[in-house]
Amino acid sequence: MPLATLLTDFGTADGYVAEMKGVLLTGAPTAQLVDVSHDVPAQDVEFARLTFARYWRRFPAGTVHLVVVDPKVGTSRTAIAVESDGRYAVGPDNGVLSPMMLLPGARAVTLDVPQGASATFHGRDVFAPAAVRLLRGDPLDSLGTPYSEALVMRTPEAQRRADGGQDGVVLAADHFGNLVTNLTARGGGTVEIAGRLVRIERTYADVTEGELLAVVGSNGLIEIAVNGGSAARMLGVGHGAPVTLRREGGAA
Amino acid sequence: MPLATLLTDFGTADGYVAEMKGVLLTGAPTAQLVDVSHDVPAQDVEFARLTFARYWRRFPAGTVHLVVVDPKVGTSRTAIAVESDGRYAVGPDNGVLSPMMLLPGARAVTLDVPQGASATFHGRDVFAPAAVRLLRGDPLDSLGTPYSEALVMRTPEAQRRADGGQDGVVLAADHFGNLVTNLTARGGGTVEIAGRLVRIERTYADVTEGELLAVVGSNGLIEIAVNGGSAARMLGVGHGAPVTLRREGGAA
Amino acid sequence: MPLATLLTDFGTADGYVAEMKGVLLTGAPTAQLVDVSHDVPAQDVEFARLTFARYWRRFPAGTVHLVVVDPKVGTSRTAIAVESDGRYAVGPDNGVLSPMMLLPGARAVTLDVPQGASATFHGRDVFAPAAVRLLRGDPLDSLGTPYSEALVMRTPEAQRRADGGQDGVVLAADHFGNLVTNLTARGGGTVEIAGRLVRIERTYADVTEGELLAVVGSNGLIEIAVNGGSAARMLGVGHGAPVTLRREGGAA
Repeated sequence: MPLATLLTDFGTADGYVAEMKGVLLTGAPTAQLVDVSHDVPAQDVEFARLTFARYWRRFPAGTVHLVVVDPKVGTSRTAIAVESDGRYAVGPDNGVLSPMMLLPGARAVTLDVPQGASATFHGRDVFAPAAVRLLRGDPLDSLGTPYSEALVMRTPEAQRRADGGQDGVVLAADHFGNLVTNLTARGGGTVEIAGRLVRIERTYADVTEGELLAVVGSNGLIEIAVNGGSAARMLGVGHGAPVTLRREGGAA
Repeated sequence: MPLATLLTDFGTADGYVAEMKGVLLTGAPTAQLVDVSHDVPAQDVEFARLTFARYWRRFPAGTVHLVVVDPKVGTSRTAIAVESDGRYAVGPDNGVLSPMMLLPGARAVTLDVPQGASATFHGRDVFAPAAVRLLRGDPLDSLGTPYSEALVMRTPEAQRRADGGQDGVVLAADHFGNLVTNLTARGGGTVEIAGRLVRIERTYADVTEGELLAVVGSNGLIEIAVNGGSAARMLGVGHGAPVTLRREGGAA
Repeated sequence: MPLATLLTDFGTADGYVAEMKGVLLTGAPTAQLVDVSHDVPAQDVEFARLTFARYWRRFPAGTVHLVVVDPKVGTSRTAIAVESDGRYAVGPDNGVLSPMMLLPGARAVTLDVPQGASATFHGRDVFAPAAVRLLRGDPLDSLGTPYSEALVMRTPEAQRRADGGQDGVVLAADHFGNLVTNLTARGGGTVEIAGRLVRIERTYADVTEGELLAVVGSNGLIEIAVNGGSAARMLGVGHGAPVTLRREGGAA
């Protein structure tokens, strides 16, 4: 069964996502459509890239991922389709598809903008039709011209410190107010954030309700959280805030 | 594969939508369910009608659209099923299905309210069961009595001005804060809104970030937008605000 | 066609739900996934339990329900799978699956936490893999050890009064601001809430717009509502607020 996932910043109420789904199911009537989210913060390409990194490879080979967070829609920015590790994606060439492009063997092609396409809605008129072709089994190369210039964004890496710790940043606050950082340490330690020192625990409920803690998140990166609360709200920080990992016993 | 779409103002957290989905899949186990949205502003029939207009015909023939925005549920307002251009819909007779009814050849039938139906939840007890019958291939006429009185609402049309421009209104603010109007002009021109004069560009990023612009939206109507921002917030206007299209060179 | 539903408090934007969906469709490629909601208030097990009660039995036999509202993820709280009336569910043993457990014949087994599972994301690493096994037809008993200690929470029952009325509480405010109570009376009467006396009507539009009313909701429990508005906002009360049902003619 052909499988397509959708990630956008459109919300759902206006019907834009439904227009895309109609195009997909008209062209590929047996496809299963899977909503990832339509609640990406408006035009936040970086946020969408981090989300996409989490899930693209969890889906089976052959899946076609639509990722439409596209502030420069209708300009000269390129529209692309990508194949990587047996999965496909379509979206704007603004870095949002980087997680797929970073894998060895990834390939991209440019997508033409059909005559009559809306300059403000490539999701419906460019990306959904390209996804239909992939869902029907057309090979990537038949969709457009090979493209080696795709914009590839990387998550900034934490810097190793002389004392064995790391200097990093908050990458994003998630739905629970957990602050996902780029610190990669496994095992014990202490994280400094917003003037507070926070111990690394195994899971959220290892501290009293309302207390700060750090945990190794489900993608291997350290998160700052509050048991039963929101670390983002308690600390008043978010994307870009500096964090430091200190080895157990290190002074603050 | 039978295909059903769902548009409601129920939100999802309370489980009302899930109850409808359970009824649909119990009666039509091979149906694919497609969420349009459950985030229509509460009881905003007009908003839902504009959303429905965007997508109903994008889905393949045979699709059954459920549209349940129904402030008068349980009163004497009629429940209807509609067939138009090979698509079906079920919903209250409050104008929300007008986009289908406006097409030549559209037909409606009334739906009976089954014994024991909840007076507050026809989505589950009237519309989902009717949709099941359509998904299973029952003809429209077998669902109820032909009904020629269906309430048909039309989007107000912009008025042509003596100087060649148009007087119109804002129909809705979308998820991005873009103000969708009923102005239909294609090509250049200037739109007057909230005391501001705004040029028609090709796409959002044709002006500097933070600047106002007008574009021809993906449904052919002129929108007022802000590159990287919200026109609704910047201008402080929404549904019903007057707008005027001036021909290139016309004085404000 | 195997059928899985998902109820979480994850939101969708971060991609956690998508990771779960990827695991489900990798393991059970022909499954249809049905979103119930990802908008349960964060870590509100009680809210999720009330939602789950509404829908679990509306789905056909064989359905696998994933319910992941799990504040104590990664601690010693048990992970379980349940079979009841031909339906299945997986989730934490925190009471959220009680509606299924309350039915005679319900059975539960404990789920092992696989080596390498994230301590913060059992939705992906414990519950989705268990759901896959059920979707593929594995019997409940093959998933784990029989478990008779599952935490069962009950919705508090209203207390009968000497005057024939009932004393109860508000269970939840729904998306429309309707206050769902545990009062069970059918037929006429008056409800006292927040110092106001409210008559039981048949449906919302039986009073003037903006007026308070009570109705028998779609699950048989009395709700307090405002025609075209929000009772929760008008009255300023929510979960746990006391309500009293008075028989017609009874004094306040």
